[in-house]
Amino acid sequence: MAVEFAPDRDVADLALRTAAFVRDVVIPVEQAHQGITGCDTVRVELQRAARDAGLFAPHVSVEYGGRGLDMRGRAAVFEEAGYSLLGPLALNIAAPDEGNMHLLEAIATPQQKQRYLRPLISGEVRSCFAMTEPSPGAGSDPAALTTRATRIRDGWQIDGRKWFITGAEGAAYAICMARTSGDAGDRGGATMFLVDAANPGLKIVRHIDSLDESLFAGHAEILFEGCVVPDEAVLGEVDRGFDYAQVRLGPARTTHCMRWLGIARRAQDIAVAHAADRQLFGSRLAELGMVQQMIADNEIDIAATRGLILRACWELDQGSSGTQSTAIAKTFSAEAIWRVVDRAVQICGALGISADVPLGRFLREVRPFRIYDGPSETHRWAIARRVVRRYLDSSR
Amino acid sequence: MAVEFAPDRDVADLALRTAAFVRDVVIPVEQAHQGITGCDTVRVELQRAARDAGLFAPHVSVEYGGRGLDMRGRAAVFEEAGYSLLGPLALNIAAPDEGNMHLLEAIATPQQKQRYLRPLISGEVRSCFAMTEPSPGAGSDPAALTTRATRIRDGWQIDGRKWFITGAEGAAYAICMARTSGDAGDRGGATMFLVDAANPGLKIVRHIDSLDESLFAGHAEILFEGCVVPDEAVLGEVDRGFDYAQVRLGPARTTHCMRWLGIARRAQDIAVAHAADRQLFGSRLAELGMVQQMIADNEIDIAATRGLILRACWELDQGSSGTQSTAIAKTFSAEAIWRVVDRAVQICGALGISADVPLGRFLREVRPFRIYDGPSETHRWAIARRVVRRYLDSSR
Amino acid sequence: MAVEFAPDRDVADLALRTAAFVRDVVIPVEQAHQGITGCDTVRVELQRAARDAGLFAPHVSVEYGGRGLDMRGRAAVFEEAGYSLLGPLALNIAAPDEGNMHLLEAIATPQQKQRYLRPLISGEVRSCFAMTEPSPGAGSDPAALTTRATRIRDGWQIDGRKWFITGAEGAAYAICMARTSGDAGDRGGATMFLVDAANPGLKIVRHIDSLDESLFAGHAEILFEGCVVPDEAVLGEVDRGFDYAQVRLGPARTTHCMRWLGIARRAQDIAVAHAADRQLFGSRLAELGMVQQMIADNEIDIAATRGLILRACWELDQGSSGTQSTAIAKTFSAEAIWRVVDRAVQICGALGISADVPLGRFLREVRPFRIYDGPSETHRWAIARRVVRRYLDSSR
Amino acid sequence: MAVEFAPDRDVADLALRTAAFVRDVVIPVEQAHQGITGCDTVRVELQRAARDAGLFAPHVSVEYGGRGLDMRGRAAVFEEAGYSLLGPLALNIAAPDEGNMHLLEAIATPQQKQRYLRPLISGEVRSCFAMTEPSPGAGSDPAALTTRATRIRDGWQIDGRKWFITGAEGAAYAICMARTSGDAGDRGGATMFLVDAANPGLKIVRHIDSLDESLFAGHAEILFEGCVVPDEAVLGEVDRGFDYAQVRLGPARTTHCMRWLGIARRAQDIAVAHAADRQLFGSRLAELGMVQQMIADNEIDIAATRGLILRACWELDQGSSGTQSTAIAKTFSAEAIWRVVDRAVQICGALGISADVPLGRFLREVRPFRIYDGPSETHRWAIARRVVRRYLDSSR
Repeated sequence: MAVEFAPDRDVADLALRTAAFVRDVVIPVEQAHQGITGCDTVRVELQRAARDAGLFAPHVSVEYGGRGLDMRGRAAVFEEAGYSLLGPLALNIAAPDEGNMHLLEAIATPQQKQRYLRPLISGEVRSCFAMTEPSPGAGSDPAALTTRATRIRDGWQIDGRKWFITGAEGAAYAICMARTSGDAGDRGGATMFLVDAANPGLKIVRHIDSLDESLFAGHAEILFEGCVVPDEAVLGEVDRGFDYAQVRLGPARTTHCMRWLGIARRAQDIAVAHAADRQLFGSRLAELGMVQQMIADNEIDIAATRGLILRACWELDQGSSGTQSTAIAKTFSAEAIWRVVDRAVQICGALGISADVPLGRFLREVRPFRIYDGPSETHRWAIARRVVRRYLDSSR
Repeated sequence: MAVEFAPDRDVADLALRTAAFVRDVVIPVEQAHQGITGCDTVRVELQRAARDAGLFAPHVSVEYGGRGLDMRGRAAVFEEAGYSLLGPLALNIAAPDEGNMHLLEAIATPQQKQRYLRPLISGEVRSCFAMTEPSPGAGSDPAALTTRATRIRDGWQIDGRKWFITGAEGAAYAICMARTSGDAGDRGGATMFLVDAANPGLKIVRHIDSLDESLFAGHAEILFEGCVVPDEAVLGEVDRGFDYAQVRLGPARTTHCMRWLGIARRAQDIAVAHAADRQLFGSRLAELGMVQQMIADNEIDIAATRGLILRACWELDQGSSGTQSTAIAKTFSAEAIWRVVDRAVQICGALGISADVPLGRFLREVRPFRIYDGPSETHRWAIARRVVRRYLDSSR
Repeated sequence: MAVEFAPDRDVADLALRTAAFVRDVVIPVEQAHQGITGCDTVRVELQRAARDAGLFAPHVSVEYGGRGLDMRGRAAVFEEAGYSLLGPLALNIAAPDEGNMHLLEAIATPQQKQRYLRPLISGEVRSCFAMTEPSPGAGSDPAALTTRATRIRDGWQIDGRKWFITGAEGAAYAICMARTSGDAGDRGGATMFLVDAANPGLKIVRHIDSLDESLFAGHAEILFEGCVVPDEAVLGEVDRGFDYAQVRLGPARTTHCMRWLGIARRAQDIAVAHAADRQLFGSRLAELGMVQQMIADNEIDIAATRGLILRACWELDQGSSGTQSTAIAKTFSAEAIWRVVDRAVQICGALGISADVPLGRFLREVRPFRIYDGPSETHRWAIARRVVRRYLDSSR
Repeated sequence: MAVEFAPDRDVADLALRTAAFVRDVVIPVEQAHQGITGCDTVRVELQRAARDAGLFAPHVSVEYGGRGLDMRGRAAVFEEAGYSLLGPLALNIAAPDEGNMHLLEAIATPQQKQRYLRPLISGEVRSCFAMTEPSPGAGSDPAALTTRATRIRDGWQIDGRKWFITGAEGAAYAICMARTSGDAGDRGGATMFLVDAANPGLKIVRHIDSLDESLFAGHAEILFEGCVVPDEAVLGEVDRGFDYAQVRLGPARTTHCMRWLGIARRAQDIAVAHAADRQLFGSRLAELGMVQQMIADNEIDIAATRGLILRACWELDQGSSGTQSTAIAKTFSAEAIWRVVDRAVQICGALGISADVPLGRFLREVRPFRIYDGPSETHRWAIARRVVRRYLDSSR
């Protein structure tokens, strides 16, 4: 055993084939749809192509038809899939479904897996994760959770408002986080529920227009109003919802990093090609020092991001909660990837702003990542607190 | 005479009334149109309202119904107008028309003024400025100009392709920069021409979709193909186009700064209101240190931007070319204003990303300013060269 | 009245003559002493030369032999003096004496002025300002003041420990801030006392070695122990010490900015000369893009700093407390000047690190400015709070 | 084989024991000597203690009494040694000796190893590496090499001037880089020579005072003047000096990163302890958001630096030249480590500036790392060129 950066051969091969698939199959579709799509037919066709290529849902266990990739394996493959905004959709490894699969595989009952997980993995249905609430509810501070589930005979009644629920429109079901004990502000007392979209107590209030538009079906505001669910709708155990959220969030924020790292590399490739091919002031654009600086800084940011992601993955694969390392990876990645795309735009000049290249689109898509999955500020606060606590513990 | 920061009383009053007009009249229209408009009826109505309020076209000379504001006066008023994306449109001080008015007032013949300037000032027509060309033509390096005007009997024939021509669609005429002598790369030999939109030799090739969408009618790619114009179409003297471009660009880039500074202040106001009203982790968001840091940095960036703009304006008002000070103001402003908007988004979190507030829109609109009117890299290159030349001159 | 950036003629002339004096007289002395001096003979000679040149103590009122420069006037002159680390010492406008003169002129009694102010202005003696205390005393939070002055018959007894007291060693007296009512943490209850160095209750505990070494006599830790002073030692009124501190601090932090801005310009001049004269990779260093970027960023930082300083000065000269504008100027300046010096070092490479040029020295001297006179974090906190309070007041 | 971050057990144990040795033995010596030492007795004693602890020279092969640590092994151990400025000296893994050992082990003849390598490894003697020349000679651009070695009978005569030669004063010999063919500017034609300090043609011209002072014996300017050496003084083959320099520089710049990373961690530990123990504005300093941000950013920078170092080490251990990955690691590390130390100073406030803690010292020591071993700008230029070349090769 020693420090090692090469993925194992199978994973390397899968990553390579994923890269080829994205280049040959996904990017042509992407270009026909201006980078993103909200059309289910396109989704279905992309997923069929990925399945035919043997690349579909590689993260789920072999039992469910995947490769059972560990986090480090995902790091290699998801980055390649992320090279197009449509790549993760094609492989069925996009948020929020990918995180929900991870969660359901970990804690659902066999019956729940049969009913909710299988069709999700196959791409037959989509899902959503209903946690975030409008102010002053659950957001940066999950404990602020106000949606409440009340015990009724044979089940629960859920009441509350959620927003920025990605993929809610058209989803077959929601995993809803609701408070089953305690009050807003308490660090315990939440429970996860599986709520069918057909449940009359679950309403889509509105589509939330936002800067980003690439996550399939976008974001919605939804309402649980007298939403009655049976006991079997409880995911895992009652009152352990915050624990499960951690099960989902650590890996989910890290797979986000992987996918966006793919976009960062794509942006850099576009910028480098432009800089190498374009003349300015009598030289190749790529020979001007300030452009070289941006190219180099992109390369550095990409390398540093990848290193932090791999580190976090390795910790998660060792069975660690990865709380600190995934927070570090997420915070750095979200900012570094943003810088990379921003520099790519700058290198390309007016072209970078135009829709002739997808960089402006990437800028829009990447910006929210500094906010989604915990704003950088919240992560920094948590990172610092853990460092200080470690010191205080050691100095006692 | 001593250093003085207060504008004269008339200007201060005008700025105050502009601020009130934007708040009471323009922002309601803005909110009804999601921040921007491409609709000419809206433009006409906004301009009528501004005229009724005595605020219309304050920058043109009294002869043309304006206030003849000098650059320092514009700084005070344009910043207030820029508080809404529609404010400059309402006052008819938006790009590119505002810069074109400035240019025409300075160098057009009386006949040209009658025909082109008057209706532009009144808002009866719009115009465009056709300089930028697709690679490898005129862009960061204006001398790369490839569009050519050839002498024919009684006039000129213009041939060439331009892109990112703001406001071209629907404009009554274009001010076209074409090479009348020398070759691409030469630092002289350009001439400006007034070309009517009705000229069959002038074609709109396509609308260029771009990240920003607020400049009225957006950006277009246009083609001059066998475009014949009479001698009277020459603006100023033949072969002096690059000089006139400087007449236009120094002030034009500075008024851009003023308008965008308005948006920066708006973004900060939205963020401060959110931070003051929102609770998080049991405190007011505005009491969290990292949020305070962003609020303070915004305040600092806004103050520094304003200082640099005023300095550049003062130099221009003294009759200086302001080459260095406008480049400094533009480079700093474009980056500082971008930072301000970006931080405002971050302070507002998911809300900042949503269309419920215009911050995501501002982010899109402000990004190109680091590229338009000379990318930051080109300005830095020019700033440094002037510094070094000054040293070399002084040390001889 | 309109925005104006030119100083009045007298001031401009004084600034010019100061620049010449620094170049011709001060810098040669500086180079003979490796940039700094702790030698009183050097101080006295430099001050004599400045007096002979008619440049001595230009900030004090005509009554005291100065020019009565307002803050804007100081901005012009102090920047020129600051071009050498020894310039402010020569003109007797260095910290902490300059701030103490300002304070004494504003609030001392005629007797106190005669005894303490006159010899300070003439350079006959030096002084110090004893406010900062070791943790957990007065520092970023002045209200944490723990040094206490107890009423005794015909006077007061002061007890407490101070540190980072600049210039204490060799000073003829200290202005000591002590608590006369309330408890540590209270925002009132402080009083200022004039304490002679000869007072047996005032002891220099130790010299504090620190990164910076240019402030004359450096920093010391001092102890007030059973230090008895008469009633006439009270400066201003009892319990109003915190108010007077503001009188001193707003201008003092701004004059600090002026002086350090001089160093920033000096650093830039050294770097530009090096870049212009040195060949690398077959071109002049100054023609490499990344070097041009650093030169340009220095120019921008210098210009922005100057703009913010002038703005703060103008507000102070209008009689405003300048709380917000001086905090903004100080925070930005301290960071911008640091960046300028840091870039200058980088441009000069190994030479920049060596003592062959004073850049490494400047780096050491400038670093503490982000901490002295209120750390950037404290200022940002205060800036943000004022912005938020303004919003809350306006939205009531 | 899969991505793996844990070092093997032996290395982990060695790192742990190194950490304990630095804490228990080295830091007490450091504190007695204000952080650094130029005293040979101290060096010898520290090295004896390290030898007694079984920690001495762990990087050299077993044949020479070391552990034969590969680069990844060094990463773990050197970071721990670097926790004190004196740690690397104690273990005899400080620059420039460590890089020279690496080089001599790789290319020296058995006789040369016996004579030069063995006493260097044992700590009996010190050495220096004489490559850098004053402008316009070899520096950022090694090809600018002007020192010349001329063939004479049975040997060579070397003439030229070198500066910033670390450790030259007191070194037993220098490895001198001189041009044996071609002209300044040519990318080939250099040869390495082993030159005894006793050689009358080798003179120490002067000690170069510099911002940093911790590298043993500091930096010197030296002169080769009619310096005659025999054929056996040639290290490796004639005219292959630039190749060998690469053999030395890739690993040497990476071990530099490891050692400085130790200092970054030390700085962070000092800052965290201060923040956790100090009260301000009624809370623990560590609970203020802006302080938490600095603590978190330090943690992120440290983690990212370590990831990039490990990646570069892994590539070197695979036999790659590691040109790109070591350049990336070096550029990022030098800047990140600097930021960490700078933030640590800021967190500690005035204390951070004082010599009561070693942070000001660290700031001085770390600054040159952005220049030594290739300035960041040169590395960025090289990184970008390789990226562009890769694109051009792939797109042919």
